[in-house]
Order: sequence, then structure tokens, then C-alpha cells
Amino acid sequence: MKRIKVSNNVIRRLPRYLRKLDELKASGVGRISSSNLGQQLGLTPSQIRQDFSSFGEFGQQGYGYNVAALRDEIASILGIDRGFKAILIGVGNIGHALMDNFCFSEWGFSLEAAFDIDPEIVGTVTKGVSVKSMDELPDYLRTNKIDVAVLTVPKEAAVPVARLLYNSGISAIWNFTNVELTEPNSSSLVENVHFSDSLLSLSYYVSERYDEEAARAARLARSEK
Amino acid sequence: MKRIKVSNNVIRRLPRYLRKLDELKASGVGRISSSNLGQQLGLTPSQIRQDFSSFGEFGQQGYGYNVAALRDEIASILGIDRGFKAILIGVGNIGHALMDNFCFSEWGFSLEAAFDIDPEIVGTVTKGVSVKSMDELPDYLRTNKIDVAVLTVPKEAAVPVARLLYNSGISAIWNFTNVELTEPNSSSLVENVHFSDSLLSLSYYVSERYDEEAARAARLARSEK
Repeated sequence: MKRIKVSNNVIRRLPRYLRKLDELKASGVGRISSSNLGQQLGLTPSQIRQDFSSFGEFGQQGYGYNVAALRDEIASILGIDRGFKAILIGVGNIGHALMDNFCFSEWGFSLEAAFDIDPEIVGTVTKGVSVKSMDELPDYLRTNKIDVAVLTVPKEAAVPVARLLYNSGISAIWNFTNVELTEPNSSSLVENVHFSDSLLSLSYYVSERYDEEAARAARLARSEK
Repeated sequence: MKRIKVSNNVIRRLPRYLRKLDELKASGVGRISSSNLGQQLGLTPSQIRQDFSSFGEFGQQGYGYNVAALRDEIASILGIDRGFKAILIGVGNIGHALMDNFCFSEWGFSLEAAFDIDPEIVGTVTKGVSVKSMDELPDYLRTNKIDVAVLTVPKEAAVPVARLLYNSGISAIWNFTNVELTEPNSSSLVENVHFSDSLLSLSYYVSERYDEEAARAARLARSEK
């Protein structure tokens, strides 16, 4: 596939497009205009046309996008068809929740194994994935080509485990630990999951709504005087 | 506080600014220039100046930002000082992980109670928060002013529980269920947490890197012929 440098903002929107197109496809929608799609996603039609134009020609003026074709194209741009392999490290609450509920395969990933230090957890199997001992991790990484490590260890283990992963030459870490994994000499990609970012955005919107309601109430009170 | 309509993209960046400023403050940095801050966040200095100008005057040309003051201002814009109250519904893996590891108070939220249907979980206490029975939820919402419900129930319970929350007039739902909660007549704000968005962005970056490596290898092979 041709690679053009695409802005991070566009890349961050692609998964949202994919989810929406999956939804449209599932409900039997065959074609959609950029303005209709924009409406459903809170984006302007021109924003949408511009985003897609980063990757080539998708739609036809006045005729809309073919939902299934656009969906497959975006999935492919995101690498869903590349057969990426993942392991998960740290089978605590979050790790177990991901093994149990997160459908890796839906997003093109195969979860190959999980690792933990707790002898009571090692050897258990969740949704077909077995938990190995952390001691086995270095050997495992030497003999298996793994693309992404899902890091769900406790905070205090985050840095040492990340270092082990860096040293193994892993391509990427999906980091749930809330610890910044900055290793100047590492070439591994790190994607941080920060629940707080999402909660704080919500906090902003709630604040904004309360302020608007208070302003409305104040106007009403003045007009009733 | 004065409210100006701010774009969603800016709002989504504010929590990242806050995390970075917290980090800078903790490591003793008193002032920072927009170009230095931009470098650390992967943003251009002009982008940063533009984002902050949405809310008023923060910096001083050629003198940089006061880290502590800017941090407090952004925290206040995000509503961290408003004393928002939250409840959590569904104490499964994810719900329990949030109760156990996510520091609500760090982001200005007080987690008041949790709810579940499982009699074995009802009555338990995690980090000082007790789990009540779902039967108590309607009454609880009538007698307590709750701002945000954290929704961590299984998929099949998402829509009925959300409807109950809408009907109670709750301001906002922080939705971890991966189910789209679209209720046309509801005025509740919904913030969806989609783990897949983050994984797919990472998938994109890994794909991009592999393509670059392959292209480099191909060039090398050609030049060695």
C-alpha cells in the first residue's frame, strides 16, 4: 500500500469511521453521503471529504460513499488485515477483563498468550488463551514473532516489564498502566490508554451544561422581576 | 466562569495538557515555553498558543507559561474543582478494576457508591466504596444528587440500565459497555470509552512502521545489486 504521511488527528478519527461504517453496514445501509455521515459523527461534510482524500479517491461527487467498500478500505489502512499478534502481560482486573470481554480478533489481532507472576493464575485459561509464567516471557519473545504487548501489570511493575519488552525488540506496547514509558533509546511504539482523559472531557461537558442551565435560570429570574 | 464555545478537538486535548503540566510541576519546572511544551506533546507552538487563547490570556510573549497557574486554570476549565459525584453500575472485571485502581478523586470526582445484581458482590466494599443492590438504584438516584454514572454492566444490560438512568434525569453516563446508547429523547450526556479506537490507532502506526522498514529493505536490496 502506498504510504502518505497522514496527520495524527486523521488517524485518530479512522477507528470512529470504522465503527460507524460497521454499524451502517449491519443495518443494511449501502451508500451514504458525506453530509449524512458527518451528521452522525458530529463532523462537517468537508472535514470528512478531506480526511478520506488523504488516502485517495473514495466517493463520487453527489453520489455518496459505498459503505462496504469504504469500510474495507479504512480497515485495511488501519492494518486490520495484517494478522498482528499480541500477548497480554499482567492478568489482574483490567488484564482479565480484556481477555474476557475485548474481542481482539474483531480488530484483526490474535491474542496468543498471557503472562503473570501469580502461581494461582499461571496455567489458567480464559477464552482459549492460557496464562504463562513471567519467567517464560523472554524465551517466548525470542521464539515467537509478537507485534504488540498489552501491558496491564501493576504500576510498580510497569517500567521494568517495559524495559524487558524494549530489549526484546517488540514493535509496540499498548499501555494500560498509567505510567509514562519514556525510554529514549527504545524504538518501540507506545500507545497509552488514559481513562482520565475521557472522564475529564465528560467533566468539561457536564460543567458547560450546568453553566448554561444556571445562566438560563438567571435570565428567567431577571425577566420575572 | 465565562463560557465560550470551544471546539471538541481543543477540549479533547485539555486532559493531555493537564497530565503534562502535572508532570512538569511534580518535577519542579516553574515555567515552560509554548515550543518546549509543544515538543513534549507532539504539537506545534502555534497550535498550543491557539488552544490556550480559546480561554483567555495565559502566557506572556517570550516569557513562557507559569506551569502551576496554567495547570490550575486548565483543571478549573475541565471542572475538576466542582465536586462532581459519581456512582458505578456493574462490579464485574472492569467495574472492579476502576474501583480498585482508578483514582476518581485525583480528577475531582467522588465515587459515592457502586451497584450490582450479584448477591455475592452486594455488600462488599472496595477502597471505601460499598456495593449496593441494583434494586436500591432508583431510590438512591431520587435521594442523592449524582452527576455521572459509570456504566460497566455486561452488554445485554447496557440499554435497560441506561434507560433507567435517563429516566432518573442523570446528567451524564461514562459508558464502558461498547454499546451505543442512543436515546433520542434523553438529555443525558454520554461519553463512550472504546478501547478498540486506541488499539486501532496503534495498529496503524505499527503498519506504517513495517511498511517503512520494508521499503528501506527493498531500497537496500536494489542498491546492493
